[in-house]
Amino acid sequence: MRDKKNIIVLKFGGTSVGDKDKIKRVADRIIKTRLEGNSVVVTVSAMGDATDRLIELAGKVASSPSRREMDMLLSTGEQASSALLAMAIQEKGYGCISLSGGQAGILTDDVYSNAKILNINVDRINREFKKDRVVVVAGFQGVNTDGNITTLGRGGSDITAVALASALKARYCEVHTDVGGVYSADPNLVDGAIKLETLSYDEMLELASSGAKVIHSRAVEFARKHNVILHIRSSFNDVEGTWVMDDYKKDEIMEKPLITGVTYDIGETKVSIFGLEDKPGIAAKLFGKLADADIDVDLIVQNVSEKNFAAISFTVKNEDLSLAKEILNKLKSIRVEVDTDIAKVSIVGAGMQTHPGVAAKMFKILADRDINIEMISTSPIRISCVVKKSRIKEAIKALHSGFGLAK
Amino acid sequence: MRDKKNIIVLKFGGTSVGDKDKIKRVADRIIKTRLEGNSVVVTVSAMGDATDRLIELAGKVASSPSRREMDMLLSTGEQASSALLAMAIQEKGYGCISLSGGQAGILTDDVYSNAKILNINVDRINREFKKDRVVVVAGFQGVNTDGNITTLGRGGSDITAVALASALKARYCEVHTDVGGVYSADPNLVDGAIKLETLSYDEMLELASSGAKVIHSRAVEFARKHNVILHIRSSFNDVEGTWVMDDYKKDEIMEKPLITGVTYDIGETKVSIFGLEDKPGIAAKLFGKLADADIDVDLIVQNVSEKNFAAISFTVKNEDLSLAKEILNKLKSIRVEVDTDIAKVSIVGAGMQTHPGVAAKMFKILADRDINIEMISTSPIRISCVVKKSRIKEAIKALHSGFGLAK
Repeated sequence: MRDKKNIIVLKFGGTSVGDKDKIKRVADRIIKTRLEGNSVVVTVSAMGDATDRLIELAGKVASSPSRREMDMLLSTGEQASSALLAMAIQEKGYGCISLSGGQAGILTDDVYSNAKILNINVDRINREFKKDRVVVVAGFQGVNTDGNITTLGRGGSDITAVALASALKARYCEVHTDVGGVYSADPNLVDGAIKLETLSYDEMLELASSGAKVIHSRAVEFARKHNVILHIRSSFNDVEGTWVMDDYKKDEIMEKPLITGVTYDIGETKVSIFGLEDKPGIAAKLFGKLADADIDVDLIVQNVSEKNFAAISFTVKNEDLSLAKEILNKLKSIRVEVDTDIAKVSIVGAGMQTHPGVAAKMFKILADRDINIEMISTSPIRISCVVKKSRIKEAIKALHSGFGLAK
Repeated sequence: MRDKKNIIVLKFGGTSVGDKDKIKRVADRIIKTRLEGNSVVVTVSAMGDATDRLIELAGKVASSPSRREMDMLLSTGEQASSALLAMAIQEKGYGCISLSGGQAGILTDDVYSNAKILNINVDRINREFKKDRVVVVAGFQGVNTDGNITTLGRGGSDITAVALASALKARYCEVHTDVGGVYSADPNLVDGAIKLETLSYDEMLELASSGAKVIHSRAVEFARKHNVILHIRSSFNDVEGTWVMDDYKKDEIMEKPLITGVTYDIGETKVSIFGLEDKPGIAAKLFGKLADADIDVDLIVQNVSEKNFAAISFTVKNEDLSLAKEILNKLKSIRVEVDTDIAKVSIVGAGMQTHPGVAAKMFKILADRDINIEMISTSPIRISCVVKKSRIKEAIKALHSGFGLAK
């Protein structure tokens, strides 16, 4: 084991601090961890819809606000919720201080709105620990070397929490969610979905990338890279959640269930491009332009070429669609079709590495129910299929029971 | 003349940036000053009622939030409005950047919620000028030597503007208001109130302290001390406003009108204390306790003592009343009475220094109208009277015409 101090990092999302009562409840939760003898760092997102309201305001004063100013604006949301949470903890009689990302020593690169953390200088946090204070750090933000405020992009608060846990050599990083852990499928959709006790980083990464909303995949990657143990749990009760850690029992993979969970994502749109010249480098150029604009392309399917013209379909996040269309419309002599009536269902499991035939079984389960598969993508421990949005619930339930995941 | 650069500091209050249209209008105003060949620094308050909403939120999570966390919370209001204004200026095609107080180099002492500016390091602002950018600085805030955010207390944004003008050796500091300048009396109350072209710092200070809302008296004091020329004007038109500068024509004071303006303040409450032991040091102790709590006591009247007990009346700002009562209630064997039905009317004018009998004339004007004077206070260039709130308009009009100020 590495040298782990008695430090725990807790992360609370925006809904957990959405109003005064929730803030007070979160304060109680933090104090409980503090009273168990831990030094506690808390990372918090902006309250409820605060960020959305700021984005809307920015859209009213400027058609395309600069990213530098957007970061200056949006970072106020986390700063405010951090200060309010610190007040609530102090009110209950415990030492506490809130710090902005910059004050907490979080140094990032210069990529506004999508910055990467370069380094965390934990001197200030350690000084506050010596004063016996809980430290609340505004999530999602840092400063660059010039002292300008940057934000970390999607999953920013999760990344702040994991990066702080790594820099502080915390025992683990506790991510609080509404649902209390990672399940074999969304418990709101599937009766008998079971909470998973432990997951490897790879499994959590595939689950997070394919739709599980409990933690952002960028944060899981960071945790894997820096070996930060994650505990994904509920902020409403004391029940153990799901632990994510190093390939804790690699030799036991054979005994693991074939698949761990079924996830889904209804936040993507399928974009199809017709009339693309079928010569080397064309696809690379196309996806290069999308990548330059920070658009995450998920599944890609290239059709067989016909008369020297190719057709490519891929999926993008719904919020990136208008930007993607803008970029594609600048390309000559192609036709773009958009299909928003899609959803992606995935099965994830380390066990499938050693069991051939999992994909075939998945396709058969869907075929047996006449659910058409429009696109497929795979990783060593994940298989994803794009289906019609109207069929997604049925697909999830069928796969969950078909692979024997139900209680 | 000192070495004045081609720099102008503009200050806009919260109502000037209250919504998207106002922000855009303010942006136009700033660009106009920029296009006249000036390097422009702008200081801005939080949008409309943003600060009030944050204070309300803090009151919901903590009964007495710590000042350090309040500053962390409230400073987000100015940071957000600065970023939005910078976006609006960029949108119109001009280089612009917003800076928090700390980023702008504003270093303060450690007195949270009522900090004083110790120093401004203008290197960053000068770097931005070299990039031909308008610099928008979040008003009301700075950082202490530990990098904690502080706020400057009442009139904070005015003070930021004046302090920046001083540190940058700006030509002048332009304070934008709804009313377009300083008037001989509130033009909404008094027909024929005239806009004053020039004022000395002393006159402006007395006007600001006695109720004129255009600029905070602390900022005027700062301007006087550092010889910063003020221009108080409208943000809605190009008409010249009121200039405030050094005792520009001291030798002409004899020719100045006897009084410059009539001001009023309906934001104070009279507090009377009975049964105070009449021995030396009692009053000092009482007012010392109020001062420790940052409560500004305005007029003070000590009554003749009766049977070794004294009665003292004084006025405090309405917002300080509950704190003042809390402090007074801890003192033994005294009785506290509060009268909120009061208003203060003042006449201000450098001319009265050389004209005896001004006070007598003021009292006679009020007496002729049967307006009872409850308390009186004077400075070399100001006389203030506390009257019943219901008589305040009549008192203002009578004094305005009685001293021949009307057009």
